[in-house]
Amino acid sequence: MQPARFFVPDLPDGGKILIKGDEAHHMVRVRRLRPGDLMVFFDGRGRQSEARVEKFGKVGVFLEILHTRRGSPELAVSITLATAIAKGSRMDFLLEKAAELGVGRIVPLLAQRGMVQGSGEHYLRRLREACKQCGRNIVPDLTAPAPVGEVAGMIGESDLALLFDPGPDARPLMEVLRSNPGAKSIFALVGPEGGFTEKEREHLRSAGAVPARVSPAVLRVETAAIAAVAAVAAVFENEAAKQTR
Amino acid sequence: MQPARFFVPDLPDGGKILIKGDEAHHMVRVRRLRPGDLMVFFDGRGRQSEARVEKFGKVGVFLEILHTRRGSPELAVSITLATAIAKGSRMDFLLEKAAELGVGRIVPLLAQRGMVQGSGEHYLRRLREACKQCGRNIVPDLTAPAPVGEVAGMIGESDLALLFDPGPDARPLMEVLRSNPGAKSIFALVGPEGGFTEKEREHLRSAGAVPARVSPAVLRVETAAIAAVAAVAAVFENEAAKQTR
Repeated sequence: MQPARFFVPDLPDGGKILIKGDEAHHMVRVRRLRPGDLMVFFDGRGRQSEARVEKFGKVGVFLEILHTRRGSPELAVSITLATAIAKGSRMDFLLEKAAELGVGRIVPLLAQRGMVQGSGEHYLRRLREACKQCGRNIVPDLTAPAPVGEVAGMIGESDLALLFDPGPDARPLMEVLRSNPGAKSIFALVGPEGGFTEKEREHLRSAGAVPARVSPAVLRVETAAIAAVAAVAAVFENEAAKQTR
Repeated sequence: MQPARFFVPDLPDGGKILIKGDEAHHMVRVRRLRPGDLMVFFDGRGRQSEARVEKFGKVGVFLEILHTRRGSPELAVSITLATAIAKGSRMDFLLEKAAELGVGRIVPLLAQRGMVQGSGEHYLRRLREACKQCGRNIVPDLTAPAPVGEVAGMIGESDLALLFDPGPDARPLMEVLRSNPGAKSIFALVGPEGGFTEKEREHLRSAGAVPARVSPAVLRVETAAIAAVAAVAAVFENEAAKQTR
């Protein structure tokens, strides 16, 4: 059985540490760790330490860090997901799946026909929980929610921007990716349930976003986001495999 | 706004009908339809009718069918998803996303390290709800839960069987699909959280399943299933687009 994983943002490379608060509570009450048990910490920026429980105190859990390494199972592509907000637990699911599938950055997109964002702290917790579970040591960056105009200004940072919004001019994702063989960073835009407004769409397109689709069906926000990330990840997983041969 | 969609398995092509039970309750209490309102029925096997509310009675809702057509937004590939059971609401999500993304048949797979299936009736309801929402008029078939030995015997019905189970011999999905260009039906196998046992893996491999992966990470059951279906769908969406040019 894999040792339990915990998120601790500021870790020393070795020595003894004291963990307090939520993570300490989780160790004792949920994971039921005992003195001598091993565990893994990650700092969300690519560092992972193995540690052993020394003892429990009133103030928290005392641990000894055994060894620290850097690394995380990451995609060969950097994906920014700028997505409209999905409703309630659907947004939680979206965030969890985006983290598991390797998204590097999430931009909650405030579209005119979309939902208002929930708590950023809650979103961040979902991302960290997903990374605990799936073994990623890098937690996706979460930006402040941004309106379409602001998001359009971020598109240029990536090699290729994809606009997942149902429309007659959307080309199959695979075809778009094949037409842009050098792209190493992808900016994926997912619109709200009712679609982007014509003005928003024009704004994003003139900033360079290419309309793309992964399915002939009209998908929910979270389905479109997860499917887009999964398909992009699968293509680059193949590229990475080719290069290591 | 799109008219509300309702699932009714046995529909006449025209005339007046009486809807009772859950769907009638849903029309009145949840969708708050009124006499004169339009709605859409689908039978789950590719038939869709537009109807108008005539009146509400004690026994149910009286409707007039205006016109009926056949058709459904389906993928250019037939996907069977034989998946281990995901935990609680994660299985609901898996089923919903599989239906939205166009899976044709779902086989709940009883793996040795996996979970026991929940209620088949509940699963079917999830699939129907997803089709209501996404506009598919065909509800995926749901088979009885089947152990690995039985599932291995079903593999031969498809052109290509993919085994999504983390292992050193898994090749990138895109590469496997490219090596099998004629495949028009895909059998996607997704193992439980702890993976298939060596014996199960051998059983599935000797039945012809090819180990494949969509991500470098170890994914949860529902993440692997959704990602696999999304990536396969994206590839065939591209194939379909090429053929209509």
